[in-house]
Amino acid sequence: MNPYWSPLVQELKPYVPGEQPKLSSLVKLNTNENPYPPSPKVLEALRHELNGSLRLYPDPNAEQLKLAIGRYLNVRTEQVFVGNGSDEVLAHAFLALLKHEQPILFPDITYSFYPVYCGLYGIAYNSIPLTDSFDIRIEDYARPNGGIVFPNPNAPTGRLLLQTDIERLLNGNRDSVVIVDEAYIDFGGESAAALVNRFPNLLVVQTLSKSRSLAGLRIGFAIGDAGLIEALERVKGSFNSYPLDRLAIAGGVAALEDRDHFEWSRQAIMWTRNWVTQALADLGFEVLPSAANFVFARHPAHDAGELAAALRERHIIVRHFRLPRIEQFLRITIGTEEDCQALLDALNALVAGKAAA
Amino acid sequence: MNPYWSPLVQELKPYVPGEQPKLSSLVKLNTNENPYPPSPKVLEALRHELNGSLRLYPDPNAEQLKLAIGRYLNVRTEQVFVGNGSDEVLAHAFLALLKHEQPILFPDITYSFYPVYCGLYGIAYNSIPLTDSFDIRIEDYARPNGGIVFPNPNAPTGRLLLQTDIERLLNGNRDSVVIVDEAYIDFGGESAAALVNRFPNLLVVQTLSKSRSLAGLRIGFAIGDAGLIEALERVKGSFNSYPLDRLAIAGGVAALEDRDHFEWSRQAIMWTRNWVTQALADLGFEVLPSAANFVFARHPAHDAGELAAALRERHIIVRHFRLPRIEQFLRITIGTEEDCQALLDALNALVAGKAAA
Repeated sequence: MNPYWSPLVQELKPYVPGEQPKLSSLVKLNTNENPYPPSPKVLEALRHELNGSLRLYPDPNAEQLKLAIGRYLNVRTEQVFVGNGSDEVLAHAFLALLKHEQPILFPDITYSFYPVYCGLYGIAYNSIPLTDSFDIRIEDYARPNGGIVFPNPNAPTGRLLLQTDIERLLNGNRDSVVIVDEAYIDFGGESAAALVNRFPNLLVVQTLSKSRSLAGLRIGFAIGDAGLIEALERVKGSFNSYPLDRLAIAGGVAALEDRDHFEWSRQAIMWTRNWVTQALADLGFEVLPSAANFVFARHPAHDAGELAAALRERHIIVRHFRLPRIEQFLRITIGTEEDCQALLDALNALVAGKAAA
Repeated sequence: MNPYWSPLVQELKPYVPGEQPKLSSLVKLNTNENPYPPSPKVLEALRHELNGSLRLYPDPNAEQLKLAIGRYLNVRTEQVFVGNGSDEVLAHAFLALLKHEQPILFPDITYSFYPVYCGLYGIAYNSIPLTDSFDIRIEDYARPNGGIVFPNPNAPTGRLLLQTDIERLLNGNRDSVVIVDEAYIDFGGESAAALVNRFPNLLVVQTLSKSRSLAGLRIGFAIGDAGLIEALERVKGSFNSYPLDRLAIAGGVAALEDRDHFEWSRQAIMWTRNWVTQALADLGFEVLPSAANFVFARHPAHDAGELAAALRERHIIVRHFRLPRIEQFLRITIGTEEDCQALLDALNALVAGKAAA
């Protein structure tokens, strides 16, 4: 053990992100990226920013981006926080709003970064089992807590919690913060951002990585009561004054302003998802109903780890989590039609091959 | 007090960055930006990255950037850590390497983010007074400590600690980490990076914001023994998997590879600094010897706060810290010759005006 490490570091168990392969020839369905490029207006805005002004610091408050988010979600800039990807936004939110005496609550099957943040900041947590159908049951969260956090749609299941259920949760939980992590909301759900004026303890987190095709630019944001946002600003101001570079700010604004491209891209992905879901079912897969840009599926006769390895041999990568309850599932990102056809062809060969054997 | 805030947030005192004015007509000498644009090769590399691949996550390990830094400073990639500006790198280093039982040590007059990190992570510190001539005296750090951190050249004084003194400090302090924060080293000092193979407790932090004219792109890095770097990676992996976006990685690589532009820009700034130092002295200012891209100066007959306000009326902004021992100093960034001439003309009018009155 390195004697220079702080005691905390010795205990940390970092998050392991999905593979970012160097080979561009792979069909990459493992990290839920959008298969379509960002809006041409984003590239144009970025080109416009490529000049000598890169020598200057960005606006530490990223005001133009906050204004664009405010226009998009109909909130004031004091209700908007921005960060270097929604992972940074979540990290600050855990420290600013979820570190209390009581343990926080999140589902047992969820975004696997949540327990990592708890380890980083010394936050106790209880994981609440999803139902057998992988649903969040609101009643299970009716207990004293230091905060509640969950993705909606949930990851990696893709299952959506309805707005009425979120309202029910908020009505029953007024004393601690509820964070709704909406990384995938644009692919089939309704944002809880519409509720922030009614619930001063609601924080909604979104990202431009998925539905805006900007995973490479690192932009996340949170919407909430100005009091919650101020807490995030205090942590941010004690950590890094300028988390968003000049290009990210400009690109983010342009992405939020091009509503047509956004609509087109998310509709295309939802259409493909419906087709892939049906095709997987036809191959004998059980596919959870997904409101995200991925599906979560298992085959009763084929081991998920073996399927993932066999796909990999065919240059197709999907995500497989060796975790309790979900080790027989594959999480498959919705790619282009061409990507998905390649996946389905490969699975057809694998499943039919074994069935014939 | 907002009941949803964590107890920690209620105590935080965030760092206040220098103003980033919206008016581009100002002569901006307040945040130590490089007055010259980044290398044309940086802009070319960025243009090359402006394409549909922004939909994909960046390499979480930013390997190309680590390789470029390794080539520049003659270290292996396992000895390199990269982050979203040197502020993020420093934040992770405080948590990973400076959070021990003993208080850490840093100068009483120094980068004012250090006590803020201590507040964020609950790290006790002792501030060690600089000498009357604003020097760091190595002997003053010969006491039990949880770590030592200082900028070299120091901020906001610009004073340089010689390599021999840093070696003396390291030889006398083997049991805790020493962080040398070299944001300004390229303007007149010699990097301690050459010492990392001999001292497993030395971490050297640099940034591309100043000498590479890329404050707007947010790239910082650290060099040290692979054991120290691993600690930083563990914190980073528990906070945000992708702190550097695709454009920052590409631009950073190009910046490090254009040695000619780098040399030209830092030589120009050093030349201007020498001229400005002499001209300020001719106006009656006491100017501390600076190895940075700014000077720290006071006038025996003029209040620094009043001078800063009067300059501001003339559309020239400099930085003034209302802090003990330095409240009569102005920190003036070295700009272009034209910027500096405007500053000197304004100061000449102010100082001569008062002298005549």
